[in-house]
Amino acid sequence: MAGPVQSIERAAAILRLLAGGPRRLGLGEVAASLGLAKGTAHGILRTLQHVDFVEQDAETGKYQLGAALLHLGTSYLDVNELRSRSLNWADALAARSGEAVRLGTPLEGQVLIVHHVFRPDDTFQTLDVGSLLPLHASSLGKVLLAFGTADPDPEPGLAAYTRHTLIDPERLARALTEVREVGWAAEIQEMSMGEAGLAAPIRGHGGLVVGAIGLSGPVERICDSQGRPRPQLISLIREAARAISRDLGAARW
Amino acid sequence: MAGPVQSIERAAAILRLLAGGPRRLGLGEVAASLGLAKGTAHGILRTLQHVDFVEQDAETGKYQLGAALLHLGTSYLDVNELRSRSLNWADALAARSGEAVRLGTPLEGQVLIVHHVFRPDDTFQTLDVGSLLPLHASSLGKVLLAFGTADPDPEPGLAAYTRHTLIDPERLARALTEVREVGWAAEIQEMSMGEAGLAAPIRGHGGLVVGAIGLSGPVERICDSQGRPRPQLISLIREAARAISRDLGAARW
Repeated sequence: MAGPVQSIERAAAILRLLAGGPRRLGLGEVAASLGLAKGTAHGILRTLQHVDFVEQDAETGKYQLGAALLHLGTSYLDVNELRSRSLNWADALAARSGEAVRLGTPLEGQVLIVHHVFRPDDTFQTLDVGSLLPLHASSLGKVLLAFGTADPDPEPGLAAYTRHTLIDPERLARALTEVREVGWAAEIQEMSMGEAGLAAPIRGHGGLVVGAIGLSGPVERICDSQGRPRPQLISLIREAARAISRDLGAARW
Repeated sequence: MAGPVQSIERAAAILRLLAGGPRRLGLGEVAASLGLAKGTAHGILRTLQHVDFVEQDAETGKYQLGAALLHLGTSYLDVNELRSRSLNWADALAARSGEAVRLGTPLEGQVLIVHHVFRPDDTFQTLDVGSLLPLHASSLGKVLLAFGTADPDPEPGLAAYTRHTLIDPERLARALTEVREVGWAAEIQEMSMGEAGLAAPIRGHGGLVVGAIGLSGPVERICDSQGRPRPQLISLIREAARAISRDLGAARW
């Protein structure tokens, strides 16, 4: 069995670095961030530039992500079976609920949004596809955590986004137990004040949870006047999740 | 000066391979396509899998693109200055013209769509961001070719998409000369029967053409009853291209 190829791991680490934080970095900053010698970092950056994964700004000499990644990223969407099987159900869920629909899958201790249907009205909305959400502070993430599909990133601890975020590991564990019991998750003003989300698990072949589908929007639309998730929205999400799961080859449940 | 890192070049070639054609490939197919020993290809694929650039199907063992690429691809959009400076102008162009707007930049002998505003009506449209168009058979591509921003991919020759595609290099060269003279390009049923497009160059700091902006849609909307591009659409595109160029630091022209 061949071991991992170090230069490819380092190239991936450089791309991840450029995708986060300031997004335009000089050679010295890249080398220092990853603990590499400047010569090593330069060789990798030049190769990444050669294959259009990285671009260098002519004026400042700083590096940023390159155009080839966009084509690879949208090509990933075309082969993602979870997404392709969900497209029609997600449209139907948005139409029936009147709310925005998002589909999430785990990526490196976070939730990656692989599909987003806008709330069917004329309000200004921005596409979340490709965005990352925290596991513990999103309804999609709580579903992935509760059913063992995603592992929490242990390093940063549980970041507090609002005063409602579950930052105590024991409270989060109790919340996840409840998610497993009831079969859906809620996030009420835990990531952003005024916003809420509800989500349910999508199961694949063999019954394993492979992703989550959910609704999100202003808290007064997602919750009733007592601040509780609206039961009719939960029913719609669970029906959509079951339908997608059946399409993916999960047994009926 | 360090030379290019071979394993990174090979990893990029594998990702490009998985983004084209059948999109799910076995180890033997990957190795054979790139002329690599199976052990070499396996080591690279395992490393790419480890960094979430590649996923392996549990049932078939075949490889496909991985989720981390989606996040990198959408992060590229956030740092693309051509795109960020064009967003408002592209919205305005779509509203004024009533047509779909697309923004293109060169990538590996093709046009990469980096922004797409839907035609402002209720028809069903699919997002083209991340798609690649042929240079010689698209109005965006003709602009990039005419102003030396993109080099044609010499290998496959000029593919014929319809009977109107310019497949003769001399006819294409004459068409590109005209694009330079008039300052805009048209593509009328050259890629798809019934469809047409118009585009103009966007210039960056120093006046170099860095991209193209254009309208596309059904030929009867883009062209008049004599089959000629509608002059009012050309004016709107050129105004938008000039406005974006000024924002990018080009001198007025």
